[in-house]
Amino acid sequence: MRMKQLASVLIFVGAGVCATQASAQFDGLYAPVAPPKSVNLGMVELGKKLYFDPRLSKSGFISCNSCHNLSMGGTDNIRTSIGDKWQQGPINSPTVLNSSLNLAQFWDGRAADLKEQAGGPIANPGEMAFSHTLAIDMLASIPAYVREFKLVFGKDKVDIDQVTDAIAEFEKTLVTPNSRFDQYLLGNKTAMTKDELAGYKLFNESGCVACHNGPNLGGNSFQKMGVVEAYKGNVEGRAAVTGKDADRFNYKVPTLRNVELTYPYFHDGNSDTLGEAVDVMGRLQLGKKFTKAENDQIVAFLKTLTGEQPVFRLPILPPSSDKTPRPTPFN
Amino acid sequence: MRMKQLASVLIFVGAGVCATQASAQFDGLYAPVAPPKSVNLGMVELGKKLYFDPRLSKSGFISCNSCHNLSMGGTDNIRTSIGDKWQQGPINSPTVLNSSLNLAQFWDGRAADLKEQAGGPIANPGEMAFSHTLAIDMLASIPAYVREFKLVFGKDKVDIDQVTDAIAEFEKTLVTPNSRFDQYLLGNKTAMTKDELAGYKLFNESGCVACHNGPNLGGNSFQKMGVVEAYKGNVEGRAAVTGKDADRFNYKVPTLRNVELTYPYFHDGNSDTLGEAVDVMGRLQLGKKFTKAENDQIVAFLKTLTGEQPVFRLPILPPSSDKTPRPTPFN
Repeated sequence: MRMKQLASVLIFVGAGVCATQASAQFDGLYAPVAPPKSVNLGMVELGKKLYFDPRLSKSGFISCNSCHNLSMGGTDNIRTSIGDKWQQGPINSPTVLNSSLNLAQFWDGRAADLKEQAGGPIANPGEMAFSHTLAIDMLASIPAYVREFKLVFGKDKVDIDQVTDAIAEFEKTLVTPNSRFDQYLLGNKTAMTKDELAGYKLFNESGCVACHNGPNLGGNSFQKMGVVEAYKGNVEGRAAVTGKDADRFNYKVPTLRNVELTYPYFHDGNSDTLGEAVDVMGRLQLGKKFTKAENDQIVAFLKTLTGEQPVFRLPILPPSSDKTPRPTPFN
Repeated sequence: MRMKQLASVLIFVGAGVCATQASAQFDGLYAPVAPPKSVNLGMVELGKKLYFDPRLSKSGFISCNSCHNLSMGGTDNIRTSIGDKWQQGPINSPTVLNSSLNLAQFWDGRAADLKEQAGGPIANPGEMAFSHTLAIDMLASIPAYVREFKLVFGKDKVDIDQVTDAIAEFEKTLVTPNSRFDQYLLGNKTAMTKDELAGYKLFNESGCVACHNGPNLGGNSFQKMGVVEAYKGNVEGRAAVTGKDADRFNYKVPTLRNVELTYPYFHDGNSDTLGEAVDVMGRLQLGKKFTKAENDQIVAFLKTLTGEQPVFRLPILPPSSDKTPRPTPFN
């Protein structure tokens, strides 16, 4: 239904009929970010602690929040992340904000959902460098954690499924409603300035919307990086998951929500600024060189996608007990 | 006055008069942790952002909170900390909690106060590996920071003095009132159990109080590590600051507030548990081998020193601008 609607709109654009009109006919291709409809609050609170707990890493130094920092748009704002022993990660950390709206997780979509994603970095030797068994041993040695898991899950034993369920449940709360764009979509037509609306029009009519649509303005399809012109800096992409040659250089389209906060851009983090990213996308994906004025307007529009960041108290973690295995950062 | 009072009490103990009595006569040697009497709230909010901002490091990855983690008792719970490029730090990170009550900062007291301390790690090549100039360049490139500094300090230019003033002001709020020991000191004599009171008595009468007294149960003098018996693992200590041979192996006595949370113990972090730390202190400082039962009681008392942890919202940091120099974690 959405794709059909999109196709007809794009044909309409192709005909050049609306070149000077407002682009309200595109509004239906997007949707405001909504608060999560159903969350288990006990699980959210437990998941929040786990998200901030560096004891889930071998070193005792790296937590989920290290690379998906909720003070910084859910990213680390570094080209590629820093893992255990300062290893350089292979790819840019995508934002955790609104990630529940994505069709899959990781740039190559190798995790079906947030729960599956959450277990990955803990056991990845280049990231947190721990193992699920060691993570559970750690948690099970801390009486306050054991009690909280029992309260939330009703079981006597902590297991990795509970851990990833809790982290995923917390991540479901990490949505950013009420951006100015969403206010506009919900009927406040004064929420965006003239330049921002012009940028929105360009965004739609140039074809950015073809991939960046839906509530997350992206995150709902895999697309080739470098359609019209090849991208220097491609890695295998989605082909690593599917094994299909056709999926080489295909990546999950990143969300543009809060894109003002999630620099640097692309899977390799090689574009430092939004202006540069818009320029690259225009040329490589659309075969279009935006003028400086057009680029500025699109960037102005993109900044209206910054929503209200999740607000919560910094969690206080339960202390290790005498039996808790100690972190080993230097061996 | 306090030292005189302490001396007379210790003589009293030495005479063995109160061996079986409650140790209420020692209560005056301590004091409850009080909320800060005067803080500049705007400066606190700005300082909180800076405290959590990893852009004050070369890598863009390490913030004050990395090693003085407010989810974890204001420490990193690692023997010695992890610095830029995973360098191993030379000494255990002391807790930031109640650090405003200390007579000086760092284990060797080389910083007179929190403001002086705050500038240290930013420019230390083994820690955040940045420089004050680069830190100011970064902040001055971020319009929202520039506005907030102007609002708080009333000046057009951001400088390092403002940065360290703001961080120190935030740190003044990081006190932990209302521990059960403080409830006891304030008159609630049922706040501690029989075992905890027995541990308190042992703590006083064995002489622990000689160094661990005052509102912070420590933090108010420099003392030799290894009085009766030498400590393996001593480094230069206070002599690095004074140049005096007599100050070798002298360290600032650490606070025992929240000591349940600030493992591992001592300047080298070589004691993993409170029980081990009490045993080492008894033997090396007091020439006393505590029995298992005595050790357990002292540990039980020490756990009554855990206060209410600072509660606040995770700060949301202003995004970098196109002009902000990008972090360089890997070169």
